[in-house]
Amino acid sequence: MNIKMGVAKAGIKPSGDYDILVLKFPPSVYGAVFTQNSLAAAPVIYDRLVFNIQEKISAIVVNSGNANAATGDEGFRNAQRMAEVVAEEFGIEREEVMVFSTGIIGVQLPMDKVEAGIRRAISEMGEFDLELASRAISTTDAFYKYYQTIGIVDGKTFQVKGIAKGAGMIHPNMATMLAYIFTDVKIDKPLLEKTTKLVADRTFNSISVDGCESTNDSFIVVATGDSDVVIDNTNRVYFAKKVYEIALELAKMIVKDGEGATKLIEINVYDAQSKEEAKAVGEAIARSNLFKTAMFGNDPNWGRILSSVGQLHIGIDFSKVKLYIGDFLIYSGAPVDYDRKKAIEYLKNSHEVRIDLYLSRGESQWTFYTCDLGYKYVEINAKYTT
Amino acid sequence: MNIKMGVAKAGIKPSGDYDILVLKFPPSVYGAVFTQNSLAAAPVIYDRLVFNIQEKISAIVVNSGNANAATGDEGFRNAQRMAEVVAEEFGIEREEVMVFSTGIIGVQLPMDKVEAGIRRAISEMGEFDLELASRAISTTDAFYKYYQTIGIVDGKTFQVKGIAKGAGMIHPNMATMLAYIFTDVKIDKPLLEKTTKLVADRTFNSISVDGCESTNDSFIVVATGDSDVVIDNTNRVYFAKKVYEIALELAKMIVKDGEGATKLIEINVYDAQSKEEAKAVGEAIARSNLFKTAMFGNDPNWGRILSSVGQLHIGIDFSKVKLYIGDFLIYSGAPVDYDRKKAIEYLKNSHEVRIDLYLSRGESQWTFYTCDLGYKYVEINAKYTT
Repeated sequence: MNIKMGVAKAGIKPSGDYDILVLKFPPSVYGAVFTQNSLAAAPVIYDRLVFNIQEKISAIVVNSGNANAATGDEGFRNAQRMAEVVAEEFGIEREEVMVFSTGIIGVQLPMDKVEAGIRRAISEMGEFDLELASRAISTTDAFYKYYQTIGIVDGKTFQVKGIAKGAGMIHPNMATMLAYIFTDVKIDKPLLEKTTKLVADRTFNSISVDGCESTNDSFIVVATGDSDVVIDNTNRVYFAKKVYEIALELAKMIVKDGEGATKLIEINVYDAQSKEEAKAVGEAIARSNLFKTAMFGNDPNWGRILSSVGQLHIGIDFSKVKLYIGDFLIYSGAPVDYDRKKAIEYLKNSHEVRIDLYLSRGESQWTFYTCDLGYKYVEINAKYTT
Repeated sequence: MNIKMGVAKAGIKPSGDYDILVLKFPPSVYGAVFTQNSLAAAPVIYDRLVFNIQEKISAIVVNSGNANAATGDEGFRNAQRMAEVVAEEFGIEREEVMVFSTGIIGVQLPMDKVEAGIRRAISEMGEFDLELASRAISTTDAFYKYYQTIGIVDGKTFQVKGIAKGAGMIHPNMATMLAYIFTDVKIDKPLLEKTTKLVADRTFNSISVDGCESTNDSFIVVATGDSDVVIDNTNRVYFAKKVYEIALELAKMIVKDGEGATKLIEINVYDAQSKEEAKAVGEAIARSNLFKTAMFGNDPNWGRILSSVGQLHIGIDFSKVKLYIGDFLIYSGAPVDYDRKKAIEYLKNSHEVRIDLYLSRGESQWTFYTCDLGYKYVEINAKYTT
């Protein structure tokens, strides 16, 4: 995969660690999904403009340590300037460069440091190193997030590599989910865009740590096209599954890194009237503080699960609902006599907990991911800036 | 006010304290608002039927310690039976009795104890005692909630008295908000119903402890009509304000009693396009865990407030938004240089914190109430049943 990379310690991050990442590749088609938050950061506003006009991009620049969010016109000019500096160095158009920032909100970027850092990173371009790249974009992440796989089409292989950062909204002033997936297939832009949206919906848009959405969240898929594999209607599902596999691993890593989480919780909603309904039910459970504290306390508290679903006001008939926690059937139209002691043991001993809810209303399914809510969440979030 | 009252220790509550309350009054018009949760408890289902057919009611019976929720057909028959026992004792129709339960979910009522308790309470009817009444309906409440006032119309006085129970969803298996307001005015049922809904919307429906809605929440306003004050179109606003005053005090008490709360937070949203929008903005802030933990940590973290608003996706222009924490202007289209030290002092020293947000989109206003989120919330909710 023809991707070159440079990193620098520009001095934006208080820790002094790497805080600039530049990735350079041949002009490549790409798909993108951005935060829906109306308080979108300057780089997101800039990238959306690029996305609307630009068929191919050739470079990505990311700074960590400062989100360039809630920074007004000056912030927008700074985001543009980051792209300009990259374009100057590589001799390409500014619009071929996408810009990302993550870190503290409401403070202008130290542009002297940022510009010097970008130029230094570009002066020492080398091989694409997933671990170092994810380190350079990380802020409060407890571990670096990257994953890769290969696919085979007609005996020819292609690669899919991903990096991400994010720990839920663990530090909202330092938060943001950034995820980049690179592949070397040949694919047209509309199909790649569609794949990006589908994958985002089942992965990064189906995780919740605390229900809070950041100002900078972005997910980009770039296809450099330098392998011999051509993706079209005959193999698009296989390709989408490979991208999904990487995205899901990265998304789960973000949930695991959430707010002092001790458990990854997979909520499977079955037999809903529609995918939208199944997703809404999963999200309602995933966003319930009461459910999440119960999971922290290893308490198979089914009342909290069902009443968070009842709160959706979509007329679910609970006399037809079945609920499993792990392999334990807990509720089946009415409370079930289950082995409570063993269910508690299951919760105590599991880093990954499964909840299966059967609505008996239709045939649609969705999986939502969240984590438990413990003391550490309060500690981290109450003590962040004071 | 012609209201008689009886209480009993029926043995439903583990503590052994009063757990049955019976109130008897002349046939009276009433307004009612019930939980929207699809997993509504048996007494709520029964009361809704009464509400649809019954012009006047003469008695209310409440048990605490068991919510009679998620209890199926047997639960419904038990709720009916509670009304029947009261009706038998008083020689009235079953449909003149409204029934309420609060306590643990998913367990059938111990009907022997409940029936005996109701009969014992009725055998010793006495004066309406607000403190004792609120004690008999309380579960995990840290303090009893009641409040009263008088109104004057054309030199004639009327009374308004309220009792409530609830501590947010502090113990979802023991949770529920119950609130009853009694007045002795003469009023027709449609006007009282309208007043009840209006008041509920600005009080009990504008508080959030953790965004979780219970299966049993109910709010009833009863007008016995035994004063000389007649409420009509000329004085309905004055009357509504008196009911609102009581309801707001009770609602604030519930928030203050929430999950180890250290602060009551009043969120005023101004200059919205509509009341619905103003309410949605207030609720978005009130439901943000990040905002609530920041308040717990005395952190004037405006980024968390604005990004929870941005998450509504209603196209708010943040370059026109103004945000105050207490008297400190924190954001005015862009971050403002404010006295951070003093703002932290304000948060540290205030049991009631005010947030004022000006949207600059219209002329509508709404106030939403919530509390902060601290360690105690996690402790209480993680340790409840295990």
